[in-house]
Amino acid sequence: MSTSMNPISIARPTLPPVEELQRRLAEILAGTELTNGAEVARFEAEAAEALEAPEVVAVSSCTAGLMLVERCLELKGEAVTPSFTFFATAHGLLWNGVRPVLADCDPESFQLDPHSVRRVLGPECSAIVGVHLFGCPAPIDELERIAREAGVALIFDGAHALGARWRGESVAARGDATVYSLSPTKQMTCGEGGLIATRHPELARDLRQARNYGKGDGYDCDILGLNARMTEFQAAIGRATLERLPAALERRRELAAFYARGLERIPGVRLQRIPEPALSSHKDFAVVLDETVDRDALMRFLAAEGIDTRAYFDPPLHRQKLYQSYYEPAREALYNTDAISSSIVCLPIHGAVSDDDARRIVDRIAGFMARPVERPRAISA
Amino acid sequence: MSTSMNPISIARPTLPPVEELQRRLAEILAGTELTNGAEVARFEAEAAEALEAPEVVAVSSCTAGLMLVERCLELKGEAVTPSFTFFATAHGLLWNGVRPVLADCDPESFQLDPHSVRRVLGPECSAIVGVHLFGCPAPIDELERIAREAGVALIFDGAHALGARWRGESVAARGDATVYSLSPTKQMTCGEGGLIATRHPELARDLRQARNYGKGDGYDCDILGLNARMTEFQAAIGRATLERLPAALERRRELAAFYARGLERIPGVRLQRIPEPALSSHKDFAVVLDETVDRDALMRFLAAEGIDTRAYFDPPLHRQKLYQSYYEPAREALYNTDAISSSIVCLPIHGAVSDDDARRIVDRIAGFMARPVERPRAISA
Repeated sequence: MSTSMNPISIARPTLPPVEELQRRLAEILAGTELTNGAEVARFEAEAAEALEAPEVVAVSSCTAGLMLVERCLELKGEAVTPSFTFFATAHGLLWNGVRPVLADCDPESFQLDPHSVRRVLGPECSAIVGVHLFGCPAPIDELERIAREAGVALIFDGAHALGARWRGESVAARGDATVYSLSPTKQMTCGEGGLIATRHPELARDLRQARNYGKGDGYDCDILGLNARMTEFQAAIGRATLERLPAALERRRELAAFYARGLERIPGVRLQRIPEPALSSHKDFAVVLDETVDRDALMRFLAAEGIDTRAYFDPPLHRQKLYQSYYEPAREALYNTDAISSSIVCLPIHGAVSDDDARRIVDRIAGFMARPVERPRAISA
Repeated sequence: MSTSMNPISIARPTLPPVEELQRRLAEILAGTELTNGAEVARFEAEAAEALEAPEVVAVSSCTAGLMLVERCLELKGEAVTPSFTFFATAHGLLWNGVRPVLADCDPESFQLDPHSVRRVLGPECSAIVGVHLFGCPAPIDELERIAREAGVALIFDGAHALGARWRGESVAARGDATVYSLSPTKQMTCGEGGLIATRHPELARDLRQARNYGKGDGYDCDILGLNARMTEFQAAIGRATLERLPAALERRRELAAFYARGLERIPGVRLQRIPEPALSSHKDFAVVLDETVDRDALMRFLAAEGIDTRAYFDPPLHRQKLYQSYYEPAREALYNTDAISSSIVCLPIHGAVSDDDARRIVDRIAGFMARPVERPRAISA
């Protein structure tokens, strides 16, 4: 009711006590390496075990990771990717001179729709870039089948997916590579950072070279790389937050279950469907509203109550200035993407959201939805 | 003489006391921002003052900074850049789909040679990417004149240039942008990081957008950006090392003067010439050896004495796998680049090099150079 209540932000990093990070900082500074050294290697080994991935390569960001995977796999021509995603999913393609072909999403799970992928996948396609949206795994089995049949690479933008599972297993070893994000809004963080998981040892070797400019023996470059090194202290923060990942995921699942119970009985509110073999990491908790409901009015209403929300991802890629020229309605209309992006809202779900906070959020949404529908006023002189 | 002496590494970051960095870390963690927040803004303001730059934009690395400057300036076609440089100078061009045209260097200053630039600059050229090599300013006045006459952009890779001056002024505000590096081998460091200095407010505004994916209002992207954000703690390290930059530069100048006095009297050894209006930041101290001297043998000899050296930059770009296809000898032969790169060696110059260390390095080089020339043995059965 009142804005004097504790504001609830959309995201908040869960960090270890400051004393622990100070101690880890002192350990790093006692050595001689500031970047891409022994602490990064330890973090990679621990992350590989936790993510059940054969190989993990630490990089400076998820975006840099996608760019380097796509460079090392030598993508050319086109790549299929959803329009309903964060823009960084497709940025790597543009930086690599690869044309994004935008596919539609499933109306219930909001994930990349395999039927749409099959429709748009043409002879110039060299890859599919899937997304584990909001932490729910994409339809991995079908995307792997399509990629195998077409002979193209399959890369997952796993920015949201730390902790996501499919048929009881981590998603990390599926496709050719999965790139996780460690930015502050994620289930664990390094401040900034990314982790590339892959089952291909040769790709991991190339990525380790590519994150250090592509430098080969001596000072000879044979891959176009980046400075995408992770610093030693970022790796130390990553190790500390990785230890706390199971607890962070558990809390997100509790909150998601609470939201689901509270919201699914409210008419006009529909939840992201998590398909059967999937376990979501609940990076985001997404709700879609009936077409009669004014989504932006709900967001303003909640903001006035101190509840921070986001319209992820509105506009979708094909409505953005940078990507609109890649939208070919005659090749694939993006009806579901348009419908979902205009009616979606994501709620706060992170370690600083208390049970009371979650209850308040559900109550406020129920209150808003119970109000009489406001009809647009006729324009009059 | 003996390897039991204190080894002298090629580079070593000069950092504040661990207690100071722990205190700064605690201050960051007491806030709510982990990346690209108020501490980054403070660092940018202090760096702008110290570097005498109208605008400074902090980014995650010098390479990312070059990529974003080149993207925001909408480079197309070709860009002229030296072959005698670190490969990252030209990586941004390749990531932007711009063809590097490799120019030769001056045989004495090792800097990009304006005569060579004029020879290779053609109608498809959209920029010159100069380099303040080893911390010595490039021939800024002439490059600015050429760029102005040709109507092309002028960007400086200032990875080495923190503290470099030209005609008594910082190099930061020259050309369209100068991109500094804050990686661990530099005069000051953030762990990893970069600073873009520019005199164009519009470019600075675009770069601030581009370092955050290119995100404009709402979630609409209109520039192809990167996640090139600097974390708050990196900015805190940067602020702490910026305070110590004058002392770091002073020590490098003392060591450079000592090396110069000691080495210039040794036959067969030639120093990088620092042209008259230039004040070098002495990121590296470079020596070129007579053609009768085996550079690699000297490096092995010094390594056995515990003295770490580098052959910056051998191979030069046009001899590297990634760049050799851009070498067009008929357009411009790179004689000086080949001669310098095969005979150059860089000596340790940083805050952990003592007077005794410097004396020992000069002595050992003198000792090596006084040895009888080893003639190549005839190949016999």
